[in-house]
Amino acid sequence: MVKNAVWMKEEQVTGSTRVGMVMATIRQRIAGRSLLPGARLPSIRRLAATLGVSPSTVVEGYERLVAEGTIHSRPGSGFYVASQAVPLSLSQIGPRVDRAVDPFWVSRLSLEAGEGDLKPGCGWLPPSWLPQDNIRKALRSVSRASGPALADYGSPFGLAPLRQLIARRIAERGIEASPDQIMLTDCGTQAIDLLCRFLLEPGDTVLVDDPCYFNFQALLRAHRAKTVSVPYTPSGPDIELFGKVLAEHQPRLYVTNSAVHNPTGATLSPLVAHRVLKLADQFGLTIVEDDIFGDFEHTPAPRLAAFDGLDRVVSIGSFSKTLSASARCGFIAARPAWVEGLIDLKIATSFGGGRLDAELVLAVLSDGGYRRHMERLQSRLSRAMFEAASRLKACGIEPWLMPQAGMFLWCRLPDGIDAADIARAALAENVVLAPGNVFSVSQTATNFMRFNVSQTLDERILDVLRRSFIKASRTG
Amino acid sequence: MVKNAVWMKEEQVTGSTRVGMVMATIRQRIAGRSLLPGARLPSIRRLAATLGVSPSTVVEGYERLVAEGTIHSRPGSGFYVASQAVPLSLSQIGPRVDRAVDPFWVSRLSLEAGEGDLKPGCGWLPPSWLPQDNIRKALRSVSRASGPALADYGSPFGLAPLRQLIARRIAERGIEASPDQIMLTDCGTQAIDLLCRFLLEPGDTVLVDDPCYFNFQALLRAHRAKTVSVPYTPSGPDIELFGKVLAEHQPRLYVTNSAVHNPTGATLSPLVAHRVLKLADQFGLTIVEDDIFGDFEHTPAPRLAAFDGLDRVVSIGSFSKTLSASARCGFIAARPAWVEGLIDLKIATSFGGGRLDAELVLAVLSDGGYRRHMERLQSRLSRAMFEAASRLKACGIEPWLMPQAGMFLWCRLPDGIDAADIARAALAENVVLAPGNVFSVSQTATNFMRFNVSQTLDERILDVLRRSFIKASRTG
Repeated sequence: MVKNAVWMKEEQVTGSTRVGMVMATIRQRIAGRSLLPGARLPSIRRLAATLGVSPSTVVEGYERLVAEGTIHSRPGSGFYVASQAVPLSLSQIGPRVDRAVDPFWVSRLSLEAGEGDLKPGCGWLPPSWLPQDNIRKALRSVSRASGPALADYGSPFGLAPLRQLIARRIAERGIEASPDQIMLTDCGTQAIDLLCRFLLEPGDTVLVDDPCYFNFQALLRAHRAKTVSVPYTPSGPDIELFGKVLAEHQPRLYVTNSAVHNPTGATLSPLVAHRVLKLADQFGLTIVEDDIFGDFEHTPAPRLAAFDGLDRVVSIGSFSKTLSASARCGFIAARPAWVEGLIDLKIATSFGGGRLDAELVLAVLSDGGYRRHMERLQSRLSRAMFEAASRLKACGIEPWLMPQAGMFLWCRLPDGIDAADIARAALAENVVLAPGNVFSVSQTATNFMRFNVSQTLDERILDVLRRSFIKASRTG
Repeated sequence: MVKNAVWMKEEQVTGSTRVGMVMATIRQRIAGRSLLPGARLPSIRRLAATLGVSPSTVVEGYERLVAEGTIHSRPGSGFYVASQAVPLSLSQIGPRVDRAVDPFWVSRLSLEAGEGDLKPGCGWLPPSWLPQDNIRKALRSVSRASGPALADYGSPFGLAPLRQLIARRIAERGIEASPDQIMLTDCGTQAIDLLCRFLLEPGDTVLVDDPCYFNFQALLRAHRAKTVSVPYTPSGPDIELFGKVLAEHQPRLYVTNSAVHNPTGATLSPLVAHRVLKLADQFGLTIVEDDIFGDFEHTPAPRLAAFDGLDRVVSIGSFSKTLSASARCGFIAARPAWVEGLIDLKIATSFGGGRLDAELVLAVLSDGGYRRHMERLQSRLSRAMFEAASRLKACGIEPWLMPQAGMFLWCRLPDGIDAADIARAALAENVVLAPGNVFSVSQTATNFMRFNVSQTLDERILDVLRRSFIKASRTG
């Protein structure tokens, strides 16, 4: 089962040092109920021998567990599991297998999954594909930074050298923005959230692609926006329907991905970009262009923000997909006049934002190693894309298109198969899938599924899929 | 002038290493326009001699400046300032001195102030008062953590060992919460923001103290809430008026600070706590108790959340004021049934949250050094409180009460003095003050000012105050 996921995952944090290993061992025994509340812990000598560490290491581990209240010591008698240290019961921390297949299905289950679970449905790379050595080096470098970098609030705009670097980077995609048009945020999602706060009134209508990134729907719901959608084609939104929806529903905002479209992997064509912007002008539409997958591109695809010059288009970016999701850093590039208002909103709702994560991202990006990492990562993803497509085809799963870049394959399942049924069945086998309708406002993607090629090559996944297709065709 | 603040402040980040010093030197010359776009940089040999560093250090600094696009190299000719590298003009990055004295006055100006500026009005300690050595040590420790800790998303609840530690810590204040009643957030403000999203509809009425933390007003405005207020007394809200306001306005929510009240430094009495909760029961009021200054206490004061048992009270905490504001980590302790809904909202609006900052906070808290730091800090603040009160009194500024703990002195200015006028005048001398009415919904604190005792002892501040009082009494 996927259960016990959160617990096991976080154990590994402190497990990287010997003291951490001691702590993790005890916590795991408590979690697994081989050590119950009030039970006596193994003696220091015995655990030291078992784990092959020195007794002083065990002492330090036990003392830290005392400090955090997991265990307590009785002088002269030893260490005991605290009565309050009972971990969350499995049913409390395990994901809700019975939850609805809604826009939160993939996010909650993917975020709650443990190390042993398989998550071809999730929207990010395995940590081992990210530049861990660069992050470690950057952390050591930040540990030597100035007092304000370590302990003070970030400035309202966010770290100036990082904003300058971002301005240069997005210029490579044709998006011209001065550093004072760029405001740092905690992540891409917070960037869109702030823009919704800034631009929307409750009850406003917002246009999204169909299919689109499921969290756009969740976010827009939190803003009490009405959502309408337009089918996405391999070259962008269906432009005829786009015009009709603008005329009929007068949406205030269009939220979309360019470059590498999530979930389809499609690429906006210059022609469609031109027509979208012409219609946006005609109907007074503002566009939020979420570009968080941009660093995966081999060659820059057209950006609405580049065509438009950040007039009615706002560009969003982040480093969660390519550098680290553990450090939180995203940005908004927008009209200068809007940035002031966005900063006031950022202060009101998250007071200034962090500085440490921005310092870390700056250190990684400044190092030169990040570009080399991205080049290797792009090649690795291309190979995985090819390999995953070929294996999925062998199971009767057909990619809707072969993306030019990124990690997603948007696939049609064999006829008559309901992706939500398959996803529910797979969950019982520790596999988190992303069924099509969580991406579809019109609920017309019953037969589709998104695969993350970096997490799909495990043979067990294809096995689960094959078996559930057979079962479905029997019962169907 | 306070101008150029952001720029100078952030220069210091990379200035902590020799390579950083090279980069900072060049950036400062570009910022100060002694190096114009297209200008040739000093030769490697010359700058090495000037700064007393090795030529290879200058080479590395120049290469990093090339990587970030500030300069470019012409093979065989040297390094040149890039045309795009022109820094933000001073007027663009300086704070708006002409801005209204509104709830954003103190936050924007304090966040934008530079190292050389004085900010007795700001709401946090100088970085040198925070446990920088512990943070540095924790960063080195986190640099050795597992891949998921460095690169993966945090779990929806947030790091389990940190939540367990928090459960133990708030238990010391009488707040009983199991770790699954605790959800990590990026900061205290985000915690309140999520609760407003969860509990409020646009147009709902929210009750605050008068005076109260100014950002409550900014945040509630972002939620389109109506705000009503009740005068705060030295032992909590004026309980008679509290009952009247509940009867008349039926507020959905009461947002308050306990333990160390901001800005007054007052402490809630058990009697008032009891009556507030009785009235809350009677009128179906939910209470958000912001407890971010709790770690400053010498002995625990009454908490509404403790009396109430997290039934209709939600408790908020963070580590921004006592550990680091650069790392972002706060939390919500609430009814179990509410946490699920709050997690969905957190995912929708910021996708899971960061893990790295939580790891860092956990490492600092687990170390034992944090408690020693807090003990020293409490003593230091007590001394500063006494000293600041005595010096302010000598200028005719009278503390409203002597707080039991914390960093704030809420003071009455000499008769006839308008605090906003004084704050505007002081800004021209690089001093950021916190005039009373930014804290007052009813705008009845014209004659009051909040002083942060950790940032008030500079003789220049008292000099600016004295001179502006003399000037005001002449023109008044």
